[in-house]
Amino acid sequence: MTMQPPSDTPTLLYGLGLGPGDPDYMTVKARRLLEEADLLVHFCKAGRRGNARTIADRVVGSDPDREMALTYPVTTEVPVTDPRYGCQITQFYEECAEQLSAILDAGKRVTVLCEADPFFYGSFMHLWRRLSPLYPTEVVPAVTGMSAAWTHANAPITWGDDVLTVLPGTLPADDLARRLKATDAAVIMKLGRHLPKVRAALKEAGLEERAIYVERASMPEQVIVPLAERSDATAPYFSMIIVPGIGRRL
Amino acid sequence: MTMQPPSDTPTLLYGLGLGPGDPDYMTVKARRLLEEADLLVHFCKAGRRGNARTIADRVVGSDPDREMALTYPVTTEVPVTDPRYGCQITQFYEECAEQLSAILDAGKRVTVLCEADPFFYGSFMHLWRRLSPLYPTEVVPAVTGMSAAWTHANAPITWGDDVLTVLPGTLPADDLARRLKATDAAVIMKLGRHLPKVRAALKEAGLEERAIYVERASMPEQVIVPLAERSDATAPYFSMIIVPGIGRRL
Repeated sequence: MTMQPPSDTPTLLYGLGLGPGDPDYMTVKARRLLEEADLLVHFCKAGRRGNARTIADRVVGSDPDREMALTYPVTTEVPVTDPRYGCQITQFYEECAEQLSAILDAGKRVTVLCEADPFFYGSFMHLWRRLSPLYPTEVVPAVTGMSAAWTHANAPITWGDDVLTVLPGTLPADDLARRLKATDAAVIMKLGRHLPKVRAALKEAGLEERAIYVERASMPEQVIVPLAERSDATAPYFSMIIVPGIGRRL
Repeated sequence: MTMQPPSDTPTLLYGLGLGPGDPDYMTVKARRLLEEADLLVHFCKAGRRGNARTIADRVVGSDPDREMALTYPVTTEVPVTDPRYGCQITQFYEECAEQLSAILDAGKRVTVLCEADPFFYGSFMHLWRRLSPLYPTEVVPAVTGMSAAWTHANAPITWGDDVLTVLPGTLPADDLARRLKATDAAVIMKLGRHLPKVRAALKEAGLEERAIYVERASMPEQVIVPLAERSDATAPYFSMIIVPGIGRRL
């Protein structure tokens, strides 16, 4: 286990957590680093602006001279269980790391924009494990999407001794149901096309009525409805289901 | 399910998440509300400054004219399982809510300081459920202590389809071990005097070697060590154990 470098080492690589969407929910540090950055790097799908870059747009507008897009070769077209997915995406991260290395070797600071918190299911982690052993790196934590979700749903997530389980919606149906039965509170991420399966698992666990569907929490396009009122249509990237705990009220 | 009031309703009561400790990890909104507050309210133990107030101290120093302490009648002297705990603490929250109601009824804004994220095991929730139905309330989410912990431990917590379980160390030993066995990544909060029991549960689940002890993450007094190097002495309030996931690396 290694700790972050001491603060007297000049940082070259930043993994900058931007929070859930509302620019007022960025940390003071993220705002400052965003404004001072030499090069703003973001991941995106072909032809799209990128989720993290869109969050940053509200603070630093488009700036072709100091921004760089890393475009995924594949996103949801190939399922993650398909060996081609792992192969293509691994090669992509390798190439990204090489590109950024060339910039870092020239002594230029690189700031990778991350939606929400970088070390919580973040794409940046795949660059971090390649580059942080080589260059002084700092990761800036942020408000998670789930914190914005339970706050804007007006639903405290854990009370007293509640256990919280965070589940990817990509898990098999029986696995989801079993884990949901065993927890007090839950957050289900990565919904995408898995919403019907997740709904069935919540129903089997007897949690359907407590489940709240939250999309783009804290963004202007925010949607918050009881799950029962949400159709089974594919859920967008910034969506999740929360099941608030019902633990000890004092 | 009710949503937060629309932004054109003037907020009277704030539940202000201050983050894990480093003032640079406060949100832009929290910093602003802290500076503009009419009355800063915080919970504390008798004779102590209070955890949330201590975090705020780095931005707004002691200010007797606009601060108010709510002093717990009982904290760790009586175990939470003892009926006297619930009785005394419930009465305490009732009295706090009455005190704050008198101020809110006079039209004065009340800002309750919360360490980390208010709706994640926060004491504020007990005031929120009494007061938010009566007064326009806004809760401001924040970086959690666990995000600061995994960031400063240099330990991405969830990869790919990892399941994360957040457990209070207060749970019975067999319950802890069973839940730890079933998860990919874990955060164990509320350690206090439960550290020996938590360690035994981690050992039973085969996770002892991956476990990292983190105390006061992002504060000047931060301690981060492999759990094996931490004694069984009582752990302070801002401490937790994290077990990073080992899911899909791409």
